[in-house]
Amino acid sequence: MPVAKVHRISAAAPDDVSGIEAAIASGAIAPAGIRAIFGKTEGNGCVNDFSRGFAVQSLQLLLRRHLDDAAADAVCLVMSGGTEGGMAPHWLVFERAEGPEASAPGAAALAIGSAHTADLPADQLGRMGQVAQVAQAVGRAMADAGITRPEDVHFVQVKCPLLTLPRIAQARAGGAEVATTDTLKSMGLSRGASALGIAVALGEIGMDRITDAAVCADLDLWSGRASCSSGIELVGHEVVVLGMSAAWSGPLAIDHAVMGDAIDVAPVRAALARLGADADTLTTPADTPLVALLAKAEASRSGRIRGHRHTMLDDSDISSTRHARAFVAGALAGLVGRTEIYVSGGAEHQGPDGGGPVALVVRRAEPT
Amino acid sequence: MPVAKVHRISAAAPDDVSGIEAAIASGAIAPAGIRAIFGKTEGNGCVNDFSRGFAVQSLQLLLRRHLDDAAADAVCLVMSGGTEGGMAPHWLVFERAEGPEASAPGAAALAIGSAHTADLPADQLGRMGQVAQVAQAVGRAMADAGITRPEDVHFVQVKCPLLTLPRIAQARAGGAEVATTDTLKSMGLSRGASALGIAVALGEIGMDRITDAAVCADLDLWSGRASCSSGIELVGHEVVVLGMSAAWSGPLAIDHAVMGDAIDVAPVRAALARLGADADTLTTPADTPLVALLAKAEASRSGRIRGHRHTMLDDSDISSTRHARAFVAGALAGLVGRTEIYVSGGAEHQGPDGGGPVALVVRRAEPT
Amino acid sequence: MPVAKVHRISAAAPDDVSGIEAAIASGAIAPAGIRAIFGKTEGNGCVNDFSRGFAVQSLQLLLRRHLDDAAADAVCLVMSGGTEGGMAPHWLVFERAEGPEASAPGAAALAIGSAHTADLPADQLGRMGQVAQVAQAVGRAMADAGITRPEDVHFVQVKCPLLTLPRIAQARAGGAEVATTDTLKSMGLSRGASALGIAVALGEIGMDRITDAAVCADLDLWSGRASCSSGIELVGHEVVVLGMSAAWSGPLAIDHAVMGDAIDVAPVRAALARLGADADTLTTPADTPLVALLAKAEASRSGRIRGHRHTMLDDSDISSTRHARAFVAGALAGLVGRTEIYVSGGAEHQGPDGGGPVALVVRRAEPT
Amino acid sequence: MPVAKVHRISAAAPDDVSGIEAAIASGAIAPAGIRAIFGKTEGNGCVNDFSRGFAVQSLQLLLRRHLDDAAADAVCLVMSGGTEGGMAPHWLVFERAEGPEASAPGAAALAIGSAHTADLPADQLGRMGQVAQVAQAVGRAMADAGITRPEDVHFVQVKCPLLTLPRIAQARAGGAEVATTDTLKSMGLSRGASALGIAVALGEIGMDRITDAAVCADLDLWSGRASCSSGIELVGHEVVVLGMSAAWSGPLAIDHAVMGDAIDVAPVRAALARLGADADTLTTPADTPLVALLAKAEASRSGRIRGHRHTMLDDSDISSTRHARAFVAGALAGLVGRTEIYVSGGAEHQGPDGGGPVALVVRRAEPT
Repeated sequence: MPVAKVHRISAAAPDDVSGIEAAIASGAIAPAGIRAIFGKTEGNGCVNDFSRGFAVQSLQLLLRRHLDDAAADAVCLVMSGGTEGGMAPHWLVFERAEGPEASAPGAAALAIGSAHTADLPADQLGRMGQVAQVAQAVGRAMADAGITRPEDVHFVQVKCPLLTLPRIAQARAGGAEVATTDTLKSMGLSRGASALGIAVALGEIGMDRITDAAVCADLDLWSGRASCSSGIELVGHEVVVLGMSAAWSGPLAIDHAVMGDAIDVAPVRAALARLGADADTLTTPADTPLVALLAKAEASRSGRIRGHRHTMLDDSDISSTRHARAFVAGALAGLVGRTEIYVSGGAEHQGPDGGGPVALVVRRAEPT
Repeated sequence: MPVAKVHRISAAAPDDVSGIEAAIASGAIAPAGIRAIFGKTEGNGCVNDFSRGFAVQSLQLLLRRHLDDAAADAVCLVMSGGTEGGMAPHWLVFERAEGPEASAPGAAALAIGSAHTADLPADQLGRMGQVAQVAQAVGRAMADAGITRPEDVHFVQVKCPLLTLPRIAQARAGGAEVATTDTLKSMGLSRGASALGIAVALGEIGMDRITDAAVCADLDLWSGRASCSSGIELVGHEVVVLGMSAAWSGPLAIDHAVMGDAIDVAPVRAALARLGADADTLTTPADTPLVALLAKAEASRSGRIRGHRHTMLDDSDISSTRHARAFVAGALAGLVGRTEIYVSGGAEHQGPDGGGPVALVVRRAEPT
Repeated sequence: MPVAKVHRISAAAPDDVSGIEAAIASGAIAPAGIRAIFGKTEGNGCVNDFSRGFAVQSLQLLLRRHLDDAAADAVCLVMSGGTEGGMAPHWLVFERAEGPEASAPGAAALAIGSAHTADLPADQLGRMGQVAQVAQAVGRAMADAGITRPEDVHFVQVKCPLLTLPRIAQARAGGAEVATTDTLKSMGLSRGASALGIAVALGEIGMDRITDAAVCADLDLWSGRASCSSGIELVGHEVVVLGMSAAWSGPLAIDHAVMGDAIDVAPVRAALARLGADADTLTTPADTPLVALLAKAEASRSGRIRGHRHTMLDDSDISSTRHARAFVAGALAGLVGRTEIYVSGGAEHQGPDGGGPVALVVRRAEPT
Repeated sequence: MPVAKVHRISAAAPDDVSGIEAAIASGAIAPAGIRAIFGKTEGNGCVNDFSRGFAVQSLQLLLRRHLDDAAADAVCLVMSGGTEGGMAPHWLVFERAEGPEASAPGAAALAIGSAHTADLPADQLGRMGQVAQVAQAVGRAMADAGITRPEDVHFVQVKCPLLTLPRIAQARAGGAEVATTDTLKSMGLSRGASALGIAVALGEIGMDRITDAAVCADLDLWSGRASCSSGIELVGHEVVVLGMSAAWSGPLAIDHAVMGDAIDVAPVRAALARLGADADTLTTPADTPLVALLAKAEASRSGRIRGHRHTMLDDSDISSTRHARAFVAGALAGLVGRTEIYVSGGAEHQGPDGGGPVALVVRRAEPT
């Protein structure tokens, strides 16, 4: 029976894969079982964040030292730039191993699935074409994970492309018109359309409610389980689904919460409690049951948090995505007592305006 | 018997004093009683943060509409730049009013005192001369507040100067040598020396343990109640002391906590409990017992938080003080459910490395 | 006969008006003759640049020390934020004095005129309403300057408003829809529509060629004499026209050039030659015939300069307007040998894409 | 007889080595002859600029596709981060080829030499140990180039290391004390000590005039031919010497100029004239005789340029190195009519305070 393993490994730099290499050398990780690697890298998380591409190139070199090209290419590499505030750069290696049957019939455990898409035409970025392409890929990733019910999915990570000036020029040369010529804005549109695709796949929103114009505009449309990062280093999508499945066994479990705004930690506290982990006891780095925390953060477009003004959208020196990551990471790190958490910026259609989904992977004391 | 009032008023811009003006117009604030105004303004909080000077100019114009020049000049104006993350720009107006006797003999309430110093010679900035000057001023401010025991002081705010290139040139022209020619670094030295002065005045550190070389170097020396902000708009110091005194009455009380690192919110939770306020019930903006939260934040020089690396000191695009304010503000706002909090950067000798003091002013249900 | 005077005065900070005060004290400036003050202030030149508002408030206080309220309010105050690279913060005080008749009949000299507009409705910002409002005001300013032929106008400065989140919310509350909800983008739209208004007034473009959709989109539409700065500190427009008029006398003359791209200094060199000033001899700060240089700079949308890629539009850490100001200021300061020049960012419809207008005021050896 | 070739190749991203690959494929570059590759990459040029490491990794992968490991490792890779303003990211590939004898006996042509050093102990960074290590390596690089007279050297590029928090911790663990714990400051110290090493090797300064304390402090000590870049990706030094030698033939020639301040382009114009290239005719990208321009830029510590204040050192949002690169690049690009130039920041001891060396490689119409 498959068992999902999640390895959280510190990174000293975007190209520091030595911790993963050591885990492989020690046998803790079997390279052939690696399904995905998420990286929280220390760039600016915006258009010219080369820490992501540098990390991807370094990971690909690592994988090729242990796998053939086809197997290496099949691993989803999802880099999220930006460790503002006190966040710690780290890798999350998702592995599918083989283990014993579940201890109880029908007991569920963490399950992992993934899928890639074809290249996205530049003129479909931020539009219905992207929504549909992502929705379809989420379905394939669920099937890969052996999850049939949408409610058993607690986290969907999509890595999506962005527009650069050369890509825009190429599209125009071919007679196509892109959704925006602002490269920073294209990152938001791509994340937004991807999140809507996830929401469609999980049954949170009907495809009929979505239009090109709604992308990044109709903030009432959102998924509570979507996490999307855009990066310059790919032109298609990589999709990873995490959920609970009775077809998998092992000690890990996952649940999720939706923060209603940037400081709304109560739902996260409640989700931890559902998983048997008490936030007030998570303060010891070693031996904590909390394996991974993955969250989305963004500045509310209303310009307000619980009635008080914020200045994130008016700051021309620091992107609002950087402000929001630092701030929400503070709120979550203060709750769980650890800074090696994965808070990703740009939460368009990922949770309500100014809030965002949070997924929690814990190690249960009594594996099922 | 004097009664301390603390008015927290939102600001729409650095020069937006309309909320204070309205409070004066309505009679909520009596201009003659204003002892100090703290401002959390929305600049970068570093050398070229003109939001502070703009706010000071605007407040001085406001005060002169209601007070004569001497009375207006006597009000301590302490601006702390930087509302990174979701922090809300706001004013804290500290007023001394007259009220009834305390309900119980010997019962204490919030007390306010203040003092100014002479201009600091540029070559004494960040050195023993500044330490001694501030220590003496804190004593005067305590006397002004009617506080005799150092343990009754819970918060000392010092606004201190910084070095600019013209000031450095002027000092050199006079044959003096300054502690640093790096203007950003001078802000830290000035805050550090001021904090050591507070620690001396409160008996936390003996003056004999402090040397020029220890300023911003010996991180074992710190005050748990100091808050220092440096600004380009003054060349002396303004000192405000907040504490508990039986010579004052009214519903307000103050206590403090010391965060051991950037995510150490447990002591703040405990201090709130001591004041009769439960962090978990502070989520409603209106009618909250929490009147004001004042904290210091900084990036730990160790480069780590609970063993995990942070990147704040390696980021050449965003000052570490901006990162730290955003992150710690997130941790504290997540705890108290409000973003109109006063988190100030640059915590040299203000709490342990990477941590910092937090003062809490609450409105008690049953005034003493 | 009126004589135009232009006083270039260094500023040590956004609120440093001491140089102007000294010039008034010495009699060099007669306060009643001040028609406009331009300021190159040292903020970020973007949305949250409070150096502009701080400068305006400081200048208004200065003017009120010498003029009554109505006269002080009539002075156009145009602050352009951003002294990136080596630019020097400074004021340009434009004064109308009385002088002798021109030395030769029909000889022309520098002439100054100005006009204000009513408040611009937020929903007209970046649209035809703004174009028309500005065009009309330019006509009034020309009349004020005694200039009848558009070809005698060499520089039109318009200070225009921007959208802030509160202004957007207010417009929406009133049922109006704004052109953008991106506050930084609103600055560009406002500058662009204002520049088109100038082009219409100067006969460079027919009003029939302009539509709402063309603003900041159809880059073939531009004025070679427009300079527009947007700022948070006003909600209407201030217009200043500089040109040559036989109705004015004195030693000053003005001409202009249009840079075709960010490094196209040859037309500026040619304009200097037309004015009798040789670029190669302008290297001595004192006694230079060059009184003022006013230019616009921006990153070309093509992403290229003479075929080579630039990275200004892909940099998420520094606004492209800041990059462009620093770079173009370098090109121009290298040409004229001085850093106290006025290079303003955001050149939408102000010169061709990536280039911009440059106005030059020189003191002629032989006044007409 | 050896012939030096310099290939200037545009880069679309830090890892875009496709242009070099194409030049190899076409036969324009023979991989075995590559001695050094300089890269102007588009990061922030400061501590956390990962564009440099990403470029190095990409170039190493490229070289290994054509050379064995030892040969690939022998190529000096010198990345300078920061293309602020309108600078264009590009590679400069320096190749040693074989060609005919010089057309005239004793005629000189561009010559290239290089050398590596051992790892620099962290506690010697910014100190005499680094000065001596670099001076020795410059001598070896000159010998490699066949240049015997120091006056025939026109450009020495040194790539030097910086301190990171881990390196500092490691040094301290070994009982050593580093020159600074400020990582950004360590970049300057490393560049400064390297430049002094170059000056010693070229006979510009006697070793006896240099002390640990003089590094980055005594600005009267400088080299007019040094260019130093510090980067996180190496712990030793890479040295490349360019000069004129009668032992080499070919059409390329090199000369240098020293800018006295950030806008002092006259000496560059003169150097171009000495090389037979007229600045006013360099405006056509194709077919220009100017092959490469390499310069250093920095903000003057005096805070002034020709008497006027600059704000580069007071800006806490943008590093002064970024301001200076943008500004000086503007001045030089305005002169030579091209943005694909190599302006590197941090000019400690590289030219006088606020100025810097400029090297020019041109293709002569009549090869010697």
